[in-house]
Amino acid sequence: MTPTVVLVPDERGVSALAGIPHVRVVVYDPEGAQLPDGAEDAEVLVAHRLDPAESGPLFVQLPRLRTVQLFSAGVERWTNVVPEGVVVSNADRAHGGAVAEWVVAQLLAHVRDLAGYRIKQENRRWEAHRTGTLSGRGVLVFGAGDIGENLRRRLEPFGCTVTLVGRTARTGVVDFAQGRAVLGDRDVVILALPLDDSTVHLADAGFLATMKDGAVLINAGRGELVDTEALLGQCGRVHAILDVTDPEPLPVEHPLWTAPGVVVTPHAAGITDDVLDRCWAAAARKIAAHVATLRTGEAP
Amino acid sequence: MTPTVVLVPDERGVSALAGIPHVRVVVYDPEGAQLPDGAEDAEVLVAHRLDPAESGPLFVQLPRLRTVQLFSAGVERWTNVVPEGVVVSNADRAHGGAVAEWVVAQLLAHVRDLAGYRIKQENRRWEAHRTGTLSGRGVLVFGAGDIGENLRRRLEPFGCTVTLVGRTARTGVVDFAQGRAVLGDRDVVILALPLDDSTVHLADAGFLATMKDGAVLINAGRGELVDTEALLGQCGRVHAILDVTDPEPLPVEHPLWTAPGVVVTPHAAGITDDVLDRCWAAAARKIAAHVATLRTGEAP
Repeated sequence: MTPTVVLVPDERGVSALAGIPHVRVVVYDPEGAQLPDGAEDAEVLVAHRLDPAESGPLFVQLPRLRTVQLFSAGVERWTNVVPEGVVVSNADRAHGGAVAEWVVAQLLAHVRDLAGYRIKQENRRWEAHRTGTLSGRGVLVFGAGDIGENLRRRLEPFGCTVTLVGRTARTGVVDFAQGRAVLGDRDVVILALPLDDSTVHLADAGFLATMKDGAVLINAGRGELVDTEALLGQCGRVHAILDVTDPEPLPVEHPLWTAPGVVVTPHAAGITDDVLDRCWAAAARKIAAHVATLRTGEAP
Repeated sequence: MTPTVVLVPDERGVSALAGIPHVRVVVYDPEGAQLPDGAEDAEVLVAHRLDPAESGPLFVQLPRLRTVQLFSAGVERWTNVVPEGVVVSNADRAHGGAVAEWVVAQLLAHVRDLAGYRIKQENRRWEAHRTGTLSGRGVLVFGAGDIGENLRRRLEPFGCTVTLVGRTARTGVVDFAQGRAVLGDRDVVILALPLDDSTVHLADAGFLATMKDGAVLINAGRGELVDTEALLGQCGRVHAILDVTDPEPLPVEHPLWTAPGVVVTPHAAGITDDVLDRCWAAAARKIAAHVATLRTGEAP
């Protein structure tokens, strides 16, 4: 049997995929225009070190390509770039735990006013003040996938009521209409869903105006889920914690950097020490499943 | 039947204890030397607004006193002050959730470097860096009571391995010798136990020297659990997050305020918006149980 050729951008990919049967791993140079010998038969391209805008010349050299494997949760930067018939495969379940951890970290820092206490330490003031707590708070998560499930598991032990919002209602998940109906009652609203035509500007002026005074909006999905101008109009009344922004990267002169009650981080929620381990493990799972599917003759 | 007289320092106590049968609640002035009529029969004194050092004249006026009810988890400031035979009753299970929440908030802020990202926002720098994560970390908690159990429940969903250390080994709890034996392997060490002769300076020079480089010590118990001088000698090598200190309050000139890798908060871990609700609920539970015990003729 001819093995399935998988292109990886570095030696780490060779060891990460070594255990998958019927696969031949070929290392390519993600900076170079020329592919190595044997690359032309590749059916899978691990693309996390490539720029989608500059990958056209590469695709021309890969007539048998079936799958582009990413290290991100979102695929929206690649779906319109790959040749017709090529599947864009995300790093499924690689980032949900780390992103949920970042959300809970920022949320706890906010409700327990760690920033206020840091200033007290800088001023050597031994003086407690009351803060909020997650206990008894209502949390609404738009997105019932990997991040949403990881959030629910981490938040419920703090005494939160967590409602996940998904495309279709099912056990433990309400649909968008039901989610919007309870939006005004919730203390915390988290965006953790993919960007597409149906979710762009989900948090628009009407959505943000519905949120109650002092509520917290956390965006751990994609910047364009939020209407930035509308958010700037609500800053101060609602708090916003944004790991993703529109535009992104956020320009130096952008008002979000200093808007009242806004915390901005540079798309860092998934960037922990173990990120490459998580991504390669996810890629290996996806590629193994893909190869198994090819071998049974089914469509990928 | 004669009701049991319970002294409370404010009207909130009257409503909080209204549902307990066979109790007569009498309000006293915690600032005043004179008790109101009917107070002399009191068997229970709710004492959270009193200073233990100044309560001697009060006790002289309460010959039938059986129980002093506190709002704190620790009782060590009162046990040597109350008349012989009087039980000091803590606010059992009132604070474990809030204190555990504070511990996790501080721990997540540390591992995810929220302070570093805050500085990036202040400098308008869109540039991610890798941080640590709780996933896969080993956490050792000295104290297997309310705080310890609340910590375990909140930390395990983040992928931590949590070991509780108690006086005696039991299911899910190791003893002190076993705890000390694994101390050098753990990434996070949390102190959440009462202060007494056996726990004072638990974290002494040898204990701290055993902790591995970069490990985090969190004190959510009492300041004297840690040998402050020994900790100052290890600062920088180990991180310390302290809600309680020795001395306490921490004097303005004390080196802990600015020691490298040290976070200090002013005994604030339990101080959330709902603290009085939690304390009165705990007091009501304890007083109801106490009165029921008195009524059956058993010793309290």
